[in-house]
Amino acid sequence: MALKVGRRGAIPAFLVMEVMRAAALREREGKAVYHLEVGQPGTSAPRGVIEAAHKALDGDRIGYTVALGIPELRAAIATDYADRYGIKVPEDRIVVTTGSSGGFILSFLAAFDPGDRVALAAPGYPCYRHILSALGIDPVMLPAQAEDRFQPTPALLEKAMEDGPIDGLIVASPSNPAGTMLGREALTALLDYCRDKGIRVISDEIYHGITFGEPAVSAAGLDSGVVVVNSFSKYFSMTGWRLGWLVVPEDMLRAVECLAQNLFISPPTLSQIAAVAAFDCHDELQANLARYGANREFLLAELPKAGFSDLAPSDGAFYLYADVGTRTNDSRDFCARILNETGVAITSGLDFDADRGNRTVRFSFAGSTEEIEAAAEALKNWGG
Amino acid sequence: MALKVGRRGAIPAFLVMEVMRAAALREREGKAVYHLEVGQPGTSAPRGVIEAAHKALDGDRIGYTVALGIPELRAAIATDYADRYGIKVPEDRIVVTTGSSGGFILSFLAAFDPGDRVALAAPGYPCYRHILSALGIDPVMLPAQAEDRFQPTPALLEKAMEDGPIDGLIVASPSNPAGTMLGREALTALLDYCRDKGIRVISDEIYHGITFGEPAVSAAGLDSGVVVVNSFSKYFSMTGWRLGWLVVPEDMLRAVECLAQNLFISPPTLSQIAAVAAFDCHDELQANLARYGANREFLLAELPKAGFSDLAPSDGAFYLYADVGTRTNDSRDFCARILNETGVAITSGLDFDADRGNRTVRFSFAGSTEEIEAAAEALKNWGG
Repeated sequence: MALKVGRRGAIPAFLVMEVMRAAALREREGKAVYHLEVGQPGTSAPRGVIEAAHKALDGDRIGYTVALGIPELRAAIATDYADRYGIKVPEDRIVVTTGSSGGFILSFLAAFDPGDRVALAAPGYPCYRHILSALGIDPVMLPAQAEDRFQPTPALLEKAMEDGPIDGLIVASPSNPAGTMLGREALTALLDYCRDKGIRVISDEIYHGITFGEPAVSAAGLDSGVVVVNSFSKYFSMTGWRLGWLVVPEDMLRAVECLAQNLFISPPTLSQIAAVAAFDCHDELQANLARYGANREFLLAELPKAGFSDLAPSDGAFYLYADVGTRTNDSRDFCARILNETGVAITSGLDFDADRGNRTVRFSFAGSTEEIEAAAEALKNWGG
Repeated sequence: MALKVGRRGAIPAFLVMEVMRAAALREREGKAVYHLEVGQPGTSAPRGVIEAAHKALDGDRIGYTVALGIPELRAAIATDYADRYGIKVPEDRIVVTTGSSGGFILSFLAAFDPGDRVALAAPGYPCYRHILSALGIDPVMLPAQAEDRFQPTPALLEKAMEDGPIDGLIVASPSNPAGTMLGREALTALLDYCRDKGIRVISDEIYHGITFGEPAVSAAGLDSGVVVVNSFSKYFSMTGWRLGWLVVPEDMLRAVECLAQNLFISPPTLSQIAAVAAFDCHDELQANLARYGANREFLLAELPKAGFSDLAPSDGAFYLYADVGTRTNDSRDFCARILNETGVAITSGLDFDADRGNRTVRFSFAGSTEEIEAAAEALKNWGG
């Protein structure tokens, strides 16, 4: 008898994977590729983290830890909230996770039931809606507008509620792909609206620390009912270490702990031990930030000369989101052509916005300045 | 308005956590504790793995990897199937996961839909049923019998189907907590029965390599429709590295890849790189195995003298499962008293069998021989 396959695996792969595969193929042919498609720092973890990892490898058994994470790391994260934002987050509400990915799985399961409707902005990080779907939760896309910095608004939520109740909202500031932020006032208004309507907010703050003007505002300082998701991947430059954290509301703590024990046992132990040192590495991390800032300035000056002039206001993260609707109606093909004809790998907006991404592309400037400069030069010379 | 909390977080914590907390408290009071409660090796990763990790820390950026795992590791695992079992498993069916925990999440989501009924033996690893529940799948407990080595049988499945169709079966050989195995003949019969009935089998093989007589038989060599779950945690002594793998049937590969990309991005990178070296460390790992074997022999001889004579036939893993029904009807209290009065930490069977675990306990002999010897001595001197 034929065996069944679950329907929940039928979620799309990322289109960026296509670009990465094509780029790898091109590199194997000996051709130059400029990687502006990948959403990860070009740098390794800071030196202090690597040293702490060496030390732990020799001195620690690297066994399981408690499910919520080692106390030293939870304490260090709590201290960081005081240092960076001037806010007090109790250590026992901080939960260490296996990347922000693990944090999303835990918080979605703990906050929502199957069939619940959770709103999120398009364009947005595609895994949100795919994880929600895999867990039986209905993603409700909010068509965010450039004039609202591509962020969700009470008005968009109001409209979405015409089709049914909204149980949750995912907000990301700075966002991926747009790099736009919600200022204190707009974030406060949104959280107030959601609290009033009984909408549980999940605040993705994984790009905090990577901002180019005002610092990002943490929802943890505004509303204790919000689940905050954060990560060591971006500002701390530790993607492959698979480590993140949650700030969990009191009423969800027990559920998150039980789920974490059962679904993950514990986050990677060596990463946890080493990450404690990350908070002493701000000098090195600020140098990374200066590079992102320089890359961003450079692209903001040069991309318009290459015909990419309709750019979202990039407040943070390491992305520029461009409307290319005057040049193409098929951003997937457009990106493939750019890679093929210039060696510059960028991402189609369709990963981030299924409806309108056919006319947008994302540039990542997380790489080296040399690579960014060479890419801009190639794009300027492109006929396209 | 009050915010909701999802129902799926309402899964029980492990009782073993209570024991671990009480044991830690006792240790802080300066009293001796013999740790026979924890299901992890007392050893660190083998030397070759630690050296490979040092090298990667200095030479690799530790960035994201492809979702299915680095090709070198997938190839090494495929080679290991040839070396250890004499079977051919194509590299492209091997998927590296974030521990076996990640493997369970991926395989359950890819194989089953919400509301599906998946059978599994009681006693068994509690996370199986908790992960299933969290993902909306109904666990159907099969009351396994000592005379069947506490393993599922076609007869038990037949009986379970009287209450509704069975979509899947989880089988673990060697099992936790009983340490019992299905021989080639029994496993083949079970897989044949399941194939015939359209039941997707998930074969948990995380204790393979830790056996004390016949080697364990892998379902990967018997049926290409079975999902095999394995891990670097037990035989390879790498618990905190959070690394495992799946052997995925062809018809589930695409679903598993998309789910892995979205839910995990990639398994921990340093662990992946270092684990390639694990397959060259069999000498050191065999020394661990010799220690488990000596510990097991010792307990099999000494536990009956301490009044624990009704032991499941332990073929593998590092557990002894004892029926203590002649001494107590409340194994949770029984374990608490033993810890309190002797310092020996063991686990109540209630974690593994909600119905009958009130009269069983699990001893883990994964620790050092000195600890096992001291524990046996303390138990023999106990009045109980």
